[in-house]
Amino acid sequence: MIKPWEIVSSRLLVDSLPWLRVAVEHVRLPNGHEIPDFYRVDLPDWAQIFALDDAGRVFMIEHYKNGPRTASLELPAGYIDPGETPEQAARRELLEETGCEAPEWCGLGQFFMDGNRGCGTSHVFLARHVRRVAEPHLEQSEIIVQHTLTLDEVRAAWLGGRLRNIATVAAVGLALARIEGETC
Amino acid sequence: MIKPWEIVSSRLLVDSLPWLRVAVEHVRLPNGHEIPDFYRVDLPDWAQIFALDDAGRVFMIEHYKNGPRTASLELPAGYIDPGETPEQAARRELLEETGCEAPEWCGLGQFFMDGNRGCGTSHVFLARHVRRVAEPHLEQSEIIVQHTLTLDEVRAAWLGGRLRNIATVAAVGLALARIEGETC
Repeated sequence: MIKPWEIVSSRLLVDSLPWLRVAVEHVRLPNGHEIPDFYRVDLPDWAQIFALDDAGRVFMIEHYKNGPRTASLELPAGYIDPGETPEQAARRELLEETGCEAPEWCGLGQFFMDGNRGCGTSHVFLARHVRRVAEPHLEQSEIIVQHTLTLDEVRAAWLGGRLRNIATVAAVGLALARIEGETC
Repeated sequence: MIKPWEIVSSRLLVDSLPWLRVAVEHVRLPNGHEIPDFYRVDLPDWAQIFALDDAGRVFMIEHYKNGPRTASLELPAGYIDPGETPEQAARRELLEETGCEAPEWCGLGQFFMDGNRGCGTSHVFLARHVRRVAEPHLEQSEIIVQHTLTLDEVRAAWLGGRLRNIATVAAVGLALARIEGETC
């Protein structure tokens, strides 16, 4: 019932993979309407982890984000490396950023970042029975403040507008509902 | 405590506002680490509306999205025009896409789309006591299937992974919590 658009032609404007690729597409819609300059932005897929330990604490990270030019409280997250599955990337990022492992992993879905432009896909995971097994192992580009919040604190931050990254907001909402529903 | 990055220099790669602007920045982190090619993507800010009528129905829209190359069930939404406030844009988009107006509007927050790249800000609104006052007024680029869902149906779609746009997922989660908490 929902017909796709046709890509009549495409011209690459920026080719800097794995970080970024930008193209301008000439598209034709099912009603015949054409748009000669519909922009496309490819960004790498990434994973986010809502990591909960047996004391009911959630491992979160606060860091400066250069996109919005602000500090941001977020879930552990990172790009999926070539050859990795999303869950492998999630396990690696959780270990690198928090020093934690978890025996139980549950996928909460995969979601595109921008309907018009693309901008990659975010894979969301809930990790339970999380425990710290090592020190975080950070790259020089990762300047991070670790936080552990109770579920009530996470919920209050989520509802109070203190999470500013839309992908964090999406993942936290799903994870809290899943935990409260005990369906994972 | 969280120090910002310094922008040492910036070079414009694509300058196609209002749709898109791409730059590559040379950045210096507070620890002295430098990244010579940190990409920045500017996209327009936009508004999304969780529109609820007095029968407990939510107005949603299904359309083909060229970014992820798929159909997607989403909230009414659209770019903020020059000179508009986010709420003005939300009211205009709700009227254009669904033919609805609402007497009661509540902001649920504003959220950046991508921590590393930017990619604009989404402003989320909850509109209550929504009523249809006109036919939708769509542009040629808007091929839309209208849906009205009950709150239970929206919740099931949200938890069941049937909402694929991460911004829709974020907004729906916040709106459902707000409605259930009756704090708006």
